[in-house]
Amino acid sequence: MENITRILFDLFLMFAAAKIMGELFERGRQPAVVGEILAGIILGPHILNMIGPSHFYQVLAEIGVIILLFNVGLHIRTEDMLKLGSISLAVAVLGIIFPFVFGYLYTRIIAHSTVEAMFIGAAMVATSVGITARVLGDLKILDAKVSKIILGAAVIDDIIGLIVLAVVTGLGKGTISYVKIGLVLAEAVAFVIFLILIGRRVMYRFFGPQLLATRSRNAPFALAILICLGLSAVASYIDLAAIVGAFMAGMILAEFNIQFRLSVKFESLYDFLVPFFFIMMGKQVDLTIFAHPSIIGAALILTIFAILGKLLGCGLGAVGLGFKQASLVGVGMVPRGEVGLIIASIGLSLGVIGQDLYSVVVFMVIATTLLTPPFLRSMILKIPELTKIREEMEE
Amino acid sequence: MENITRILFDLFLMFAAAKIMGELFERGRQPAVVGEILAGIILGPHILNMIGPSHFYQVLAEIGVIILLFNVGLHIRTEDMLKLGSISLAVAVLGIIFPFVFGYLYTRIIAHSTVEAMFIGAAMVATSVGITARVLGDLKILDAKVSKIILGAAVIDDIIGLIVLAVVTGLGKGTISYVKIGLVLAEAVAFVIFLILIGRRVMYRFFGPQLLATRSRNAPFALAILICLGLSAVASYIDLAAIVGAFMAGMILAEFNIQFRLSVKFESLYDFLVPFFFIMMGKQVDLTIFAHPSIIGAALILTIFAILGKLLGCGLGAVGLGFKQASLVGVGMVPRGEVGLIIASIGLSLGVIGQDLYSVVVFMVIATTLLTPPFLRSMILKIPELTKIREEMEE
Repeated sequence: MENITRILFDLFLMFAAAKIMGELFERGRQPAVVGEILAGIILGPHILNMIGPSHFYQVLAEIGVIILLFNVGLHIRTEDMLKLGSISLAVAVLGIIFPFVFGYLYTRIIAHSTVEAMFIGAAMVATSVGITARVLGDLKILDAKVSKIILGAAVIDDIIGLIVLAVVTGLGKGTISYVKIGLVLAEAVAFVIFLILIGRRVMYRFFGPQLLATRSRNAPFALAILICLGLSAVASYIDLAAIVGAFMAGMILAEFNIQFRLSVKFESLYDFLVPFFFIMMGKQVDLTIFAHPSIIGAALILTIFAILGKLLGCGLGAVGLGFKQASLVGVGMVPRGEVGLIIASIGLSLGVIGQDLYSVVVFMVIATTLLTPPFLRSMILKIPELTKIREEMEE
Repeated sequence: MENITRILFDLFLMFAAAKIMGELFERGRQPAVVGEILAGIILGPHILNMIGPSHFYQVLAEIGVIILLFNVGLHIRTEDMLKLGSISLAVAVLGIIFPFVFGYLYTRIIAHSTVEAMFIGAAMVATSVGITARVLGDLKILDAKVSKIILGAAVIDDIIGLIVLAVVTGLGKGTISYVKIGLVLAEAVAFVIFLILIGRRVMYRFFGPQLLATRSRNAPFALAILICLGLSAVASYIDLAAIVGAFMAGMILAEFNIQFRLSVKFESLYDFLVPFFFIMMGKQVDLTIFAHPSIIGAALILTIFAILGKLLGCGLGAVGLGFKQASLVGVGMVPRGEVGLIIASIGLSLGVIGQDLYSVVVFMVIATTLLTPPFLRSMILKIPELTKIREEMEE
């Protein structure tokens, strides 16, 4: 076994740093999640280097984001998804086209090859759902229509992001496998449709009065955990992201959320595990790029395009909601995350893009991640309909 | 990172097996914890061999037992400990002397050397607190006086077990370091006294109205987690068991348990993590010893002495409680666990005891672990005072 003393100290340190930074940010009327990411950056290898090398934290973080997305799903009923799904789809698709085109054109203009431009465009498309989900959850507006649209779109985005990943990997290797792309797409669609059609009905069998009559301690919670772990594992197995499975697991259980107090029961698991996801996100931030001031100019411009791309694309997709809420959708979709980094690092490892362009992408990911929550928070606080929902939740 | 798909499948499988076996045992009016251990045995390397080699599960199990002992501590106020501490101490000490003497004499009688007999005696002393804590918790009688005595004694037992470990390790190597033994003892005593005197007062500063006024989500839970992780890490660092720190953390927070709803808030973390401790306990059960029928006779006799030792020693220590409750204390202290196995395996690796005696100890540990919960459960259900406490808790 790994050294348990070290692991316990590390967990203590990470959790303490996350909570202290989170509290400071909340007091400054800023989102706690940014404080948690900064806590990870500070404890990470480039500053204090105080977190041990155990794989344990990485797995814990992954389970944290699974619990986060499961909780999001618990607030989105299947009917919501069917009703709002077309808006979410429009938001997701337009929110992919705009950033891709912007990224592609900008890279071409600063005189790089077509393949390089394709990679940068691809690295700009996938939204990181965790940040937005956390801000919406902290502000207690997961039940608002606009939240459901954003989070639905972000999950669709994740699936499309995986397809883009398959395309550009093929592109970098000089062989695009249409079979593989088709397979990922077909699996994703089949997985989602199967769960919407069958999953929910099966759940009605389990989540009935007999569940409360079982002898096991806290049986509804245990069954929910199993569905969450099981579907995350299946989604991960068929090369979808595990969080897509976790989200779907939450969604097919959403109708039982209130009766069985599921999101209340998941609270302490959420509060313990989710911070580790953001700390590890911070830990992985590569600060060495700031040692290359020459790239900062290009990085800032690409970041602006990354923001504009989602604002325009996603905003356009949600234009029916009116200006304020459409803008909120746009901002909510701005954060980029690991999929962008993965695409850029594949490009780097295949020798398709250079260290400079890779660093530009890393900068863009860090900037969109850290900048979005404050804007998102202040926009939400200015929309009266959302304030009403918050007040109802707090009662 | 380790293969997350595999880890998610494994977690699903372990949790599902634990819950199904637990439910079956509950329906057969047997303790769920035995079902969980059997689930671990079935999934483990000797039968289905379906659990991957990741260290993750081992660490998860360790955090599970930390949460388990923290929860026990939450039900034992410092005053309880001071008031009942002398009974607990008597139970612990007599419950160590009797099994040691029985183990020593039996080993000598079946013609082994003095050193061998010392090792077997030592392997018989340390109670495994997890099993009993879980049964008492499942039956909702953690607040009963007799439960507090048993669990206090089991924690003291753990500390003495560590001292015994230091002694026999020295014995096996032919050099007993009195300095090291004194150090372990002094650290343990200082740690416990410091926390009782200072820890509680410091907690009064934190767990006040201002804690509820912090802006962080679920602040009392977060602070409790930090104290639990921090003291477990410190206890582990000074060569005490991490669970002793977790227990003490719970104890200094026990006065705030009701006001801040701490044990309620820890429920889902408990329900998710604790089963992994018992599954991993089952996974580590070495079934190969049953391939040596020649040792079964000696193993059965040693098991009987192990049970009688605790029954007589601990029962005598708690004789003031009357026959029924004193017997309950004796039975509650019967399960042996990892400390016994560690002592035996040190003896084996130093060449002091042979494979046959090692297997005898392994058998004794398995038998006391699996036999105790059913007896404990049925005895508790037959004591009217405890039934009253259970009914109050269930209201």
